Amino acid sequence: MAEIRTIGVANGGGDAPGLNAVIRGVVKSAIRRHGWRVIGICNGFDSLIWPEGCLPLTWDAVSGILPRGGTILGTTNRGNPFAYRHMENGKEQVTDYSGLCLENARRLGLDAIVVIGGDGTLSIAQDFYRRGLPVVGVPKTIDNDLSATETTFGFDTALHVATDAIDRLHTTAESHHRVMFVEVMGREAGWIALQSGIAGGADVVLLPEIPFRFEAICAAVRAREEQGRRFSLVVVAEGVQLPEKDPAGQPIPPAGPGEVSNRIAGVLRGMLQKEIRVTVLGHVQRGGSPSPFDRILATRFGVAATQLVARGEFGRMVCLRAGKIDSVPLEDAVAKPKLVDPRGELVEVARSVGMMFGDES
Amino acid sequence: MAEIRTIGVANGGGDAPGLNAVIRGVVKSAIRRHGWRVIGICNGFDSLIWPEGCLPLTWDAVSGILPRGGTILGTTNRGNPFAYRHMENGKEQVTDYSGLCLENARRLGLDAIVVIGGDGTLSIAQDFYRRGLPVVGVPKTIDNDLSATETTFGFDTALHVATDAIDRLHTTAESHHRVMFVEVMGREAGWIALQSGIAGGADVVLLPEIPFRFEAICAAVRAREEQGRRFSLVVVAEGVQLPEKDPAGQPIPPAGPGEVSNRIAGVLRGMLQKEIRVTVLGHVQRGGSPSPFDRILATRFGVAATQLVARGEFGRMVCLRAGKIDSVPLEDAVAKPKLVDPRGELVEVARSVGMMFGDES
Amino acid sequence: MAEIRTIGVANGGGDAPGLNAVIRGVVKSAIRRHGWRVIGICNGFDSLIWPEGCLPLTWDAVSGILPRGGTILGTTNRGNPFAYRHMENGKEQVTDYSGLCLENARRLGLDAIVVIGGDGTLSIAQDFYRRGLPVVGVPKTIDNDLSATETTFGFDTALHVATDAIDRLHTTAESHHRVMFVEVMGREAGWIALQSGIAGGADVVLLPEIPFRFEAICAAVRAREEQGRRFSLVVVAEGVQLPEKDPAGQPIPPAGPGEVSNRIAGVLRGMLQKEIRVTVLGHVQRGGSPSPFDRILATRFGVAATQLVARGEFGRMVCLRAGKIDSVPLEDAVAKPKLVDPRGELVEVARSVGMMFGDES
Amino acid sequence: MAEIRTIGVANGGGDAPGLNAVIRGVVKSAIRRHGWRVIGICNGFDSLIWPEGCLPLTWDAVSGILPRGGTILGTTNRGNPFAYRHMENGKEQVTDYSGLCLENARRLGLDAIVVIGGDGTLSIAQDFYRRGLPVVGVPKTIDNDLSATETTFGFDTALHVATDAIDRLHTTAESHHRVMFVEVMGREAGWIALQSGIAGGADVVLLPEIPFRFEAICAAVRAREEQGRRFSLVVVAEGVQLPEKDPAGQPIPPAGPGEVSNRIAGVLRGMLQKEIRVTVLGHVQRGGSPSPFDRILATRFGVAATQLVARGEFGRMVCLRAGKIDSVPLEDAVAKPKLVDPRGELVEVARSVGMMFGDES
Repeated sequence: MAEIRTIGVANGGGDAPGLNAVIRGVVKSAIRRHGWRVIGICNGFDSLIWPEGCLPLTWDAVSGILPRGGTILGTTNRGNPFAYRHMENGKEQVTDYSGLCLENARRLGLDAIVVIGGDGTLSIAQDFYRRGLPVVGVPKTIDNDLSATETTFGFDTALHVATDAIDRLHTTAESHHRVMFVEVMGREAGWIALQSGIAGGADVVLLPEIPFRFEAICAAVRAREEQGRRFSLVVVAEGVQLPEKDPAGQPIPPAGPGEVSNRIAGVLRGMLQKEIRVTVLGHVQRGGSPSPFDRILATRFGVAATQLVARGEFGRMVCLRAGKIDSVPLEDAVAKPKLVDPRGELVEVARSVGMMFGDES
Repeated sequence: MAEIRTIGVANGGGDAPGLNAVIRGVVKSAIRRHGWRVIGICNGFDSLIWPEGCLPLTWDAVSGILPRGGTILGTTNRGNPFAYRHMENGKEQVTDYSGLCLENARRLGLDAIVVIGGDGTLSIAQDFYRRGLPVVGVPKTIDNDLSATETTFGFDTALHVATDAIDRLHTTAESHHRVMFVEVMGREAGWIALQSGIAGGADVVLLPEIPFRFEAICAAVRAREEQGRRFSLVVVAEGVQLPEKDPAGQPIPPAGPGEVSNRIAGVLRGMLQKEIRVTVLGHVQRGGSPSPFDRILATRFGVAATQLVARGEFGRMVCLRAGKIDSVPLEDAVAKPKLVDPRGELVEVARSVGMMFGDES
Repeated sequence: MAEIRTIGVANGGGDAPGLNAVIRGVVKSAIRRHGWRVIGICNGFDSLIWPEGCLPLTWDAVSGILPRGGTILGTTNRGNPFAYRHMENGKEQVTDYSGLCLENARRLGLDAIVVIGGDGTLSIAQDFYRRGLPVVGVPKTIDNDLSATETTFGFDTALHVATDAIDRLHTTAESHHRVMFVEVMGREAGWIALQSGIAGGADVVLLPEIPFRFEAICAAVRAREEQGRRFSLVVVAEGVQLPEKDPAGQPIPPAGPGEVSNRIAGVLRGMLQKEIRVTVLGHVQRGGSPSPFDRILATRFGVAATQLVARGEFGRMVCLRAGKIDSVPLEDAVAKPKLVDPRGELVEVARSVGMMFGDES
Repeated sequence: MAEIRTIGVANGGGDAPGLNAVIRGVVKSAIRRHGWRVIGICNGFDSLIWPEGCLPLTWDAVSGILPRGGTILGTTNRGNPFAYRHMENGKEQVTDYSGLCLENARRLGLDAIVVIGGDGTLSIAQDFYRRGLPVVGVPKTIDNDLSATETTFGFDTALHVATDAIDRLHTTAESHHRVMFVEVMGREAGWIALQSGIAGGADVVLLPEIPFRFEAICAAVRAREEQGRRFSLVVVAEGVQLPEKDPAGQPIPPAGPGEVSNRIAGVLRGMLQKEIRVTVLGHVQRGGSPSPFDRILATRFGVAATQLVARGEFGRMVCLRAGKIDSVPLEDAVAKPKLVDPRGELVEVARSVGMMFGDES
């Protein structure tokens, strides 16, 4: 194994609270434990294509970033170097910059790269690894839907934002005898909706994993009213499956994040003859200072990634298992997502305290 | 002046953080200072129509409600007793219950009523006052748009929620080099947008009081990019005036709260060729535990309202002037709203630190 | 196994955020899943001695308590029914009320009791179990020092309060070039100090598990100054071991929680000739609304305790293992505490990012 | 009036949330409105003595500091240039560096200086002004005890921290039937204690302005117990006047901030035979991100200070009056402090909702 002198660190995809804590963990442990230099690769892998964008990451450069949201490296949801899309003369071009990236990594003297990202970014990392670049991964998914790790940073902070919003809406819903909807993140997996629903004491939670019927929601709201509870709080995961038709047989146009809860509320407004208000939390769930849990986990991930590099365990990703730091092959990161089990303990707990999922008969 | 033995307290309209603190202030000072009984009139004026809905407000009943959002009385945006809308045999009926209310107030032994509300609710209070009911008012408007009082409770809490959202979006906008929109409350007056914009360091703020041009927003975003700031944060008051046509001359369909920021973002996305994300904060701004400022002001208003009753100064509303509690005739409450002055100090301060309003040439 | 119709729920010891969420979880799942009645035993086991203090726990009684700190049952650090201390005619008496408790449990029709508590309270629970009372336990320790469970509710909330304080002190320390001390909870185990220290980016952390030397702290502060960092933030666990003498050989008087950090600061003030300010967080760490994580874990524990009762698995305590709910014999709860491992991963991570523990040579 | 090209900005004394917002307000408005250069004078007036410590304050240098606590300039409670204390050969020397400062100000090309500070720092500013330096002042006092301005930045944030602590302690006090003390800032003026007490619903508040008797506090706690309220929450301003003797005639040793509440609790513990717990909030009240109100007021102050400079109105300090920005002569800043009026409206409001001040007979 070649001696390590300089490593790079990169991140890609949507930001998540804790990214800066990972970067700080990588940099400080690389310097203090191993005496390495660290170079920041900015905006996904862009600085491997245009290396003048690289950021020298000294001890000072990462001091004070621990409590900050976002990422000092910048990030992007685009920019796959193996198929880079860009406009040229008004036409979209797709270029393979991967060879240039490998060459630049060599020129920059990068003996290894720590890549922080979700399945998209880690797929690219794995492709680079196959092409000979020594890579280790750090998982990042605010939806907490990776099966290779018990949990990831960012999710706990998102849960705080969503739960705080539910707490606030609760007082208004109760005072106004209203049905209140709040749409939270979760395209494929409903973890934020389920857990913020439990934490906030929501009455109905609609998940991608549990198909719902409008009649069941109406029944839940009406059952509450019969018990004197004239308000209901409904949490909707943005990736919930919209039925094709409403109970009257009318087709419901498809709707994506930001619209799906309004679509559902629209149908129910007619059925319940009740005021329904909708809040779409959106990107506030991704931002802001990470929670203590996220800062700690992110720091552990960063330090652990440096250790993987030091031990030459490339092509692997750090993960959390039974509260302990471990690692798995990178390809496990992009395996099938970890979904909410409709028959699992958490859903059963939710039902036990009175939560409905719209699948009740 | 007849001796006071029992007073009622009512609230109507949208809820605002601090309502419970006002109610507690009224009840505790009525009991401790004057030895009165207090009866809670629930859901607007509904309990004056159906008096079995009244709530006896003892010292114990209001203990512990100070930090809670919402209102223990319940509230409603409907239910004007002078023109009560309800369904009968499938048809909407409008009934004048005001006589019944006056009769029930007498039967309940109410020697005076404290009414907490915005211009709608206080208009009704004034109508009751003209019909002989001894009434005092407490102003409530989360938009802070009453000219009769320097400020009202609830606004500071709303400002916290909006500013916290802007802070969170800032980190994401910066990391992703995006334009981020956040839509906040403010139908006629843009106080929440302007002040949360200043507090959050927003780049562009769109207000009902300042007509904007799409070109000016584009210029602002582009000027920032030229200075190396590849992100912009835009705060939109829900009551902003949408231009009738976009710069290409295409008509823009009208849009109300919850949609207006999406409409603006839609036009700009085409003009800027840039990713724009929209968050609509909605009712989370009204809910949750009131800020210290709002708890203190609400408590002062509640105690002051009781004093107005004790002094027999009916037909008046408490208010804040130069940091001191004062009172004004109820009709002043429903006078013209307090709007943002486009040439006022606060807008000038905002421009001085670099904020744009979309009216720049 | 006898049919269950009525269960009791009790809690004892210091309060922890999430207690109400456990109680709600027990009550709602008992009613919804099993149709049982639930009786609340107030102030430790006091209501088993004086049963008129019992609280009927209906669905309504536990509605809305999920986000509230404290416990609706009240609690106490005293009141062991097997050796109840009370004053009689100016003298302290110790009485064994355990027989009376068992008799009252029978009279109240309690078929089982769920006891939420730390090692003290669960020891009593086990004594009752040995005397024939069907008991299940729920672990509660804000210090997170039970080896029988991966984590307990309340700890995450305490971590938030401590980390928020460190964040706030950081800005002042940095602006004033000061050494700032903050004393946090943790009598035997330093988990809160260690984890809030990592989350807050503290410079020095003093734990009960790692004996420190004054010289090492001075060296750490001075090394930082040489790097241009003219401030240091020191987190002290209240149970830290105070050296018997200062470096000058003068004896240091022993000091307990609330004083120990002042004692250490006093010695260092002389050695460093630098301003040192001390904050003792105290009971604010125990109070307030539980974090989402704590609410969810507490709810899961409450539901799981009800399931233990339903399956007749008495004498056991619910716990969390590898993120999953499990159970262990009650005696495991009172086994040796889970301490910070001075050579464990978390301490190593902390050292890797530059934290000192005062044991450096 | 000479043309302005370059201004300096300095701050001194204890830090307060909002300092950075003032600095940003000064810098951005100086650049945008007037095209001036701005130089930051660090650590009080130190950089006027050693000008190599100056910080060029460009637009970029102040971008992103709005939400941050502390001050980018650093600050100090010492360092009066007219009588600078320092150690030389083991002896304390006092040197008058004021002439050097004036000379350096000239060398640096400073046409005016904006000084942000409390009465100590502004006295120095005034002395410089008398010596011919064009100075304008911005008031800073976290205790809100300046009579020349309605309110200052930092106070609202301190109120948030104190109220949040009271909210947290409330749940524990209530669950444990305890008396809880919390000591807050306020050496001469009890504004934080009074206002956080009202906002948090404290039972007893002890202020510097209202001498208390131990017997009255005991009576208050006992009266509550007779009403079934077995807990009490006591807020103590750090500057409260300690009686010379306890009710038994024993002398009470004097105690300053951090100790005074423990001293009072010690006496009451004996009198009440009840558990009393004490929390000393300390410097967490000064730190952290400023509240929206403080960010806005600080920004307004910064912009207004620049305007004073532009209009040549030196020797004056900006202030807030009836919600509007105004200015007063600098000497007014160091006039007698604004104290709580024991017969004023706020104290009366507090008494009306049941708060005691220990002066009740």
